[in-house]
Parts: sequence; structure tokens; C-alpha cells
Amino acid sequence: MMQTESRDAAANDAAAEPLGRTERKRLVILEAASDLFLRQGFLGASMDEVAALASVSKQTLYKQFANKEALFVGVVQSMTGEASSRVQAAMIEPGDPAQVSAQLHAHAYRLLDIVLTPRLLQLRRLVIGEASRFPELGRSLYDGGPGRSIAILAATFARWAERGLLNVEDPVMAASQFNWLIMGEPINQAMLRCDDPLSDAAMRTAHVVGGVRVFLAAYGAGWSETDV
Amino acid sequence: MMQTESRDAAANDAAAEPLGRTERKRLVILEAASDLFLRQGFLGASMDEVAALASVSKQTLYKQFANKEALFVGVVQSMTGEASSRVQAAMIEPGDPAQVSAQLHAHAYRLLDIVLTPRLLQLRRLVIGEASRFPELGRSLYDGGPGRSIAILAATFARWAERGLLNVEDPVMAASQFNWLIMGEPINQAMLRCDDPLSDAAMRTAHVVGGVRVFLAAYGAGWSETDV
Repeated sequence: MMQTESRDAAANDAAAEPLGRTERKRLVILEAASDLFLRQGFLGASMDEVAALASVSKQTLYKQFANKEALFVGVVQSMTGEASSRVQAAMIEPGDPAQVSAQLHAHAYRLLDIVLTPRLLQLRRLVIGEASRFPELGRSLYDGGPGRSIAILAATFARWAERGLLNVEDPVMAASQFNWLIMGEPINQAMLRCDDPLSDAAMRTAHVVGGVRVFLAAYGAGWSETDV
Repeated sequence: MMQTESRDAAANDAAAEPLGRTERKRLVILEAASDLFLRQGFLGASMDEVAALASVSKQTLYKQFANKEALFVGVVQSMTGEASSRVQAAMIEPGDPAQVSAQLHAHAYRLLDIVLTPRLLQLRRLVIGEASRFPELGRSLYDGGPGRSIAILAATFARWAERGLLNVEDPVMAASQFNWLIMGEPINQAMLRCDDPLSDAAMRTAHVVGGVRVFLAAYGAGWSETDV
């Protein structure tokens, strides 16, 4: 599913602003590499196979990515960056506290929908398994994924606090707390139990409503239970 | 450090109630196996090496653990069970809401201290890396670690709610939220960035105080900011 979406995104980008030949080849290489790494692991995939699957010469491949580590970092950055942009894209500036609540709910559902896709979970598993050998991989995933997501959310919360829509003194802490109230249980169950505890729609709703309620009890401005 | 503690724990258990010869051998095997798995990974460690390091015959080893998967599940259960028991052991029944706050702070520090030890983090990385191939490993770690911890905390919160010390309607959700408010950021940074974002004592305190504050804003009974 992610693959189709990422192809669509690439197609849209291309329509908006034509990509150069080098950039197009880079996207094709990254897509082939992500398929191979997710299927065979980092150690199990070779540069030769990536070149063959992407239908590029080894020379072209090595011109873009000096070695397999650099290629995997490229895959991690492109997959997490694309997901993170989709999470953030739809945030609307609220006009009043009730709209803050609605935006937080919508943001929580987007986080769950986008982060808990099989390809991103498999990438995360791979990267965690290799993180002690290749720390650069883990840092790329953290910085481009939860790190970036929390930083953008912190900037949003700071803006809403200035506008009197939230009572937040430490926007980075508040953003991290929101992120893990929503993502902590499902992502850790997905990592360890390999299942999605929120596949049931009613449980998913209860989880989001409960998480937003806790967040707004601490940080809501002029907030009451009836707004949730 | 964990290793010494687990040896001490084994020694204490032995003092309290003498272990049978079979049970003593089982502990020695589990300790040798956890050292080897943590150092060499699941695929990199062999039953022969475990038997040699534990100074037991292969026959004795296979009598206790039918295969390498069963042995790794045993290691996961023993390491997470021991950690989880130490987290829970020191919870004291509070007399009033101010003591609830103090107990939550103490519980949060214990969680951080015990879960973020290098050996448990390395075990978690190993298990996540193997979870799609050996789902039993991930389930053992989840059930014996965060799953057990959250279940015991939920029972505690239910009791405190009955005594009017917390306003909690769904104790399991509240316990999961408390767990991830405290553990979400540090454990995911540890997994991906391989560093401890709370190694600075002042940041650690701010993180715990901030997490407990959010929890009590949502669930505190007769709670005010001055109790934190």
C-alpha cells in the first residue's frame, strides 16, 4: 500500500515540477532498495541485487550511494520523511478550544494510520535490529520520524499557546507526551507482539479519545469534558 | 551490573529456599545463554557454546530446553520477569492524594532505572530484530515486561480508585497511559538513537515530574499543582 502511495507521491511531484534524470533514477533506486531491504534485511541484500532490480548500472548506483550503509540511510530518510510529511500536512489552524480538540483527534488518527503501516513497522524492526552495529540508521529513523514529528508538533503547540488555545509552558515536552500517549502502546505492541492492538475500530476510537482527554486535562485552555 | 544483581537475586533465593540441583543448573544455563545471546545475537549463538559456557553436558542442556528457541524464550522470560518484579516490589499503599503523587514519582523513577539498563535494552533490540521470524520471543518479552507491568499497575489504580485516591474509570487504559508517558520517549530513543535522553539528572527529574503532572491532571482526586 505504502509502495503505491509513494509511487503516486513521486508521480505528483513529477507533475508539479519535472524531475531531472538523476533525481528520477535516485527515486527508482530508493524504491528498489527499500523493497529488497524490507524483504531480505540489511545484511541479506546486496548492491548488485539493488542495481538489477532498479535496472541501473552499478556505476550509476554507486554514483548516487557510495555504499550499502549510505543507501540504507537514504531508504530510511525517504520512507520516514514521506510518512512524516503526510502526518503533518493536514493540520488546520483552530479558531477556538473546541477546534483544538478536533485537530488533536484528527492528528492522532493520522499518526496511527501512517506510522502503523506494515512497511514502516518492518523498517523500524530492521533498523532497531541493526542500530547497535549501524547507529546512523537508527538516528536517521528517529530524526526523520518521531523526532521530526514531535518538533513540528511542538512548534504548533507553542503557536496555539501564544494564541491562548493551550496552557503549555514546555511545548517540546507536551508534544512528546502527546506523541507517546497516542503511539506508545500500539507501536511497542506492534514491535514486540507483531500485532495491532487497535485493529478494532471501537478500541481505536477509545484509545484516541482517552489519550486526547488526558492531554487536554493537563494542557487544555477553557477546556471541558464536553469538548471531547 | 544486571548480571551481578541477577546473581545476587539467585543467591538470595537460594538462601531463602534451597534450590534443587535441577533448578540450580537451569539458572546457570539461563545466565550463560543470556550472556551469549546478548553478545552474539540469536543466530550467532549455538547450543554447543551455551553448554560449554554453563559447564553442563549437552544432554543436561537439552533436557531443560528442547531447542534454541525454547532457550531464548527462557532467557527473555527470566530477564523480563526479574526486572518487572523489581519495578513492582517497592510500591507502597498511599494514605492520601499527596502520597499517591509521591508513589507515582517513585514508580516512574524505578521504571526508568530498571528498564533502561544496557542488558535489557540489548535484549529488546535482539527480540524486535527477530520478532517477525520468531513471534514467540516478542510475545514473551511484551507479556513479561510492559504487559505485566501495566496489568499490575492497572490493579493498583483500580484499588486506589475504589479508595477515592484516583478518578479512574478504565484502569488498564490509565496504566498504559502512565507507562508510556514515562517510558515512551526514553525507550524509543534508546532503541533508535542508542542513547539515553535522560542521562542528565535534571532532565530526568523534569521528565518524571512532567509525566506525573499530566497523569494527575487527568486522574488525580483532590489533586492540585502543589502536590507535585
